[in-house]
Amino acid sequence: MAEKQIIIGAGLVGSLHAVYLAKRGVQVEMFERRPDMRTVDISAGRSINLAISHRGLKALNRVGLKEKVLEMVIPMPGRMIHDVEGNTNFQPYGKQGQHINSVSRGGLNALLMTEAEKAGVKINFNQRCISMDLDAGKATFRDEVSGEVTEAAASHIYGTDGAFSEVRHAMMMTDRFDYSQTYLKHGYKELSIPAAEGGGFRIEKNALHIWPRGGYMLIALPNLDGSFTVTLFLAFEGKHAFENLNTEQQVLDFFNEVFPDVVPHMPTLVEDFFGNPTSSLCTVRCFPWRYKDKALIFGDASHAIVPFYGQGMVSGFEDCFVFDQLADEHWNDKETLFDKFQYSRKPDDDAIADLALRNFVEMRDSVADPRFLLRKQIEKKLSAKHPDQWTPLYEMVTFSEMRYSEALARGKEQDKIMEDILSWDGIESNWENPDVFKKIEEKALG
Amino acid sequence: MAEKQIIIGAGLVGSLHAVYLAKRGVQVEMFERRPDMRTVDISAGRSINLAISHRGLKALNRVGLKEKVLEMVIPMPGRMIHDVEGNTNFQPYGKQGQHINSVSRGGLNALLMTEAEKAGVKINFNQRCISMDLDAGKATFRDEVSGEVTEAAASHIYGTDGAFSEVRHAMMMTDRFDYSQTYLKHGYKELSIPAAEGGGFRIEKNALHIWPRGGYMLIALPNLDGSFTVTLFLAFEGKHAFENLNTEQQVLDFFNEVFPDVVPHMPTLVEDFFGNPTSSLCTVRCFPWRYKDKALIFGDASHAIVPFYGQGMVSGFEDCFVFDQLADEHWNDKETLFDKFQYSRKPDDDAIADLALRNFVEMRDSVADPRFLLRKQIEKKLSAKHPDQWTPLYEMVTFSEMRYSEALARGKEQDKIMEDILSWDGIESNWENPDVFKKIEEKALG
Repeated sequence: MAEKQIIIGAGLVGSLHAVYLAKRGVQVEMFERRPDMRTVDISAGRSINLAISHRGLKALNRVGLKEKVLEMVIPMPGRMIHDVEGNTNFQPYGKQGQHINSVSRGGLNALLMTEAEKAGVKINFNQRCISMDLDAGKATFRDEVSGEVTEAAASHIYGTDGAFSEVRHAMMMTDRFDYSQTYLKHGYKELSIPAAEGGGFRIEKNALHIWPRGGYMLIALPNLDGSFTVTLFLAFEGKHAFENLNTEQQVLDFFNEVFPDVVPHMPTLVEDFFGNPTSSLCTVRCFPWRYKDKALIFGDASHAIVPFYGQGMVSGFEDCFVFDQLADEHWNDKETLFDKFQYSRKPDDDAIADLALRNFVEMRDSVADPRFLLRKQIEKKLSAKHPDQWTPLYEMVTFSEMRYSEALARGKEQDKIMEDILSWDGIESNWENPDVFKKIEEKALG
Repeated sequence: MAEKQIIIGAGLVGSLHAVYLAKRGVQVEMFERRPDMRTVDISAGRSINLAISHRGLKALNRVGLKEKVLEMVIPMPGRMIHDVEGNTNFQPYGKQGQHINSVSRGGLNALLMTEAEKAGVKINFNQRCISMDLDAGKATFRDEVSGEVTEAAASHIYGTDGAFSEVRHAMMMTDRFDYSQTYLKHGYKELSIPAAEGGGFRIEKNALHIWPRGGYMLIALPNLDGSFTVTLFLAFEGKHAFENLNTEQQVLDFFNEVFPDVVPHMPTLVEDFFGNPTSSLCTVRCFPWRYKDKALIFGDASHAIVPFYGQGMVSGFEDCFVFDQLADEHWNDKETLFDKFQYSRKPDDDAIADLALRNFVEMRDSVADPRFLLRKQIEKKLSAKHPDQWTPLYEMVTFSEMRYSEALARGKEQDKIMEDILSWDGIESNWENPDVFKKIEEKALG
């Protein structure tokens, strides 16, 4: 009989991992706390869509799902920056032809669940994991509808049960488990721009829209039906803060003052604002990620990050990819496989957590800063002339397969170099002068 | 009727806090997981004694207990360093007359419990807190002997229930609670040196003994009965590590090789080694420390630290002191009191956590380093000549009431200055030359 493996959490990462595992011919059973999202609407004002980029597509491609997913995305080749006067400025993310993709969280999750089932995976819904016996390889579930409690045993248990993982919680009860959860002072609230009357998009379809305002920002990602999912990122406390937006008038005044161009496109602004939850933003780090050969956590369960680099799901998909590569060699020795996986992947998932925190400052503030734009221009020219020697950080993270940890290290080197260059007298006006640009090349590529 | 307050955890910090609270005339009830240590031996090979220094005595003095405690201590005016050849070298901790004090954990805890009871506090033993309802101000306990479950309600609940605090666990379930637990690669095991035959101390009574060996160390603190409590700090994995000490012969070989002078004084070395647990060392940080005006955590519950500065209990006692000072002004507004306490105390308890981690390197390694000893000599002379302008870091932490955060900041400044001075050519031989010392004074005192 084939060995049995259990996955707890049928979200995006768990469902993709199930497809990977099933293709190895083992019996895979999944347990999911929520009802089947293919039959019940469970979005409830939380992250309706997200961005998928190269690393995520690479992981889908390894199990033949890339093309199917690409049919349901909207390409976003750059950021559309909106200033307070309503002026817009398009900033490409990378080179010609490079783009990230807006995709429906629910749509993608449903597709992956269906693919997992096609591959022979059984998914049990409404099953909340309430306890684990790591040594015995057993998990206990309570049916969220009937209340019935059942137990499942397996040779190996994978926890892909998200930022508040119950599998991780069981590991935390063991000795010498490092753990941290760190919240931002900012929270977020989901809002919406409906499709135009008669269909079509009210604002530019092929862009990730940003209204950067220094300490806070609004963003919008397009959906296939012509609508946009809009997210307000704002401090909980302070001058511009959720604590001061308690009445319809306060919300309207705030939006009319700081995001005036988008207000006419948001007819349900007030209803959305008071109907949807204000959610917090947390970074979770821990180690180890495995318990013997019995349990392994990945995705948000081992490294929940803030959403500002669009790499939360993507890093989880890359976990699946790296696991599967290592499994080619170590499948018959799970303890070695789990151990190699955690040591290989931990530095990269730490790096993307740091990058995501840094990118919040970039998105809400720097993208409207002339020095940031000058740097982008210089880097763009450097990269065009010397594609093998200079790749901007965003492109390394988003469009390459370079390890996140290496991208972060290179990005820090680039920061030092570009800070020096930007301090040169007159650089903002003379950087394109051939002599000056030659000096830039010497400094940057030295 | 007086308002009722509950303290969960009747350890050192909880018991002292109970004395403080009771003196304000409120009804105080304590719940303790363990049996009454005054009637049952519960030490079980874990930290039988510890060091109490100025800040701890200051906190005891505020409720009139300093003199009683001083009757049960052994003064330790310095470190006695033992090298591999068995040579010893005494390093004073501070100026003439300054010393830290070895005290029995159980003895001190018992005294504080008795004082709390005298002040009218009721202590319920064998009561494990199994859940909390923070909003309702209720805690549920299970009697560890009878299994009976009871509930207690109070206006305010204090969690002094240690590094694995259940009160903190309840706070962690609320949104936006920052938390981290970080383990050292080293663990510890308690061993012992019995009293000499016929009584008396086998090694110098008035010292904290250290056998520093770079990556690991052995320490010994004196007890009133002539014995010493010995603690081995050693990595779990690696060359010199617990994982390689599995047989009697391995343990004896290791001790004979690296701590030869102490082996003859440890007749029960092998029994102690295999009879006592190997424990881990964790730093816990979190924030906030309060839930509305309902609950407040302190001591190890909010900031568990590693033991290398001898400030774990002491920082908890200083929490009690600071709380009581703030209570003089804000007693009738607990929300303000709890809030001022957490913001006042958090930077200091963060600083002592960092200092304790730094001191592990100093204790196990630097104390045997000639450069470290040279620095100590120079600092001693600076401090003697200019007591108002230069106080060595150890003295600021141990013998002053300066905020830990300020001591840490000043210590970092001192590090920079002394690193510079120690890099001067020939400094090791010419520092006492009047011209050179004048230059040292100019550099150090600015």
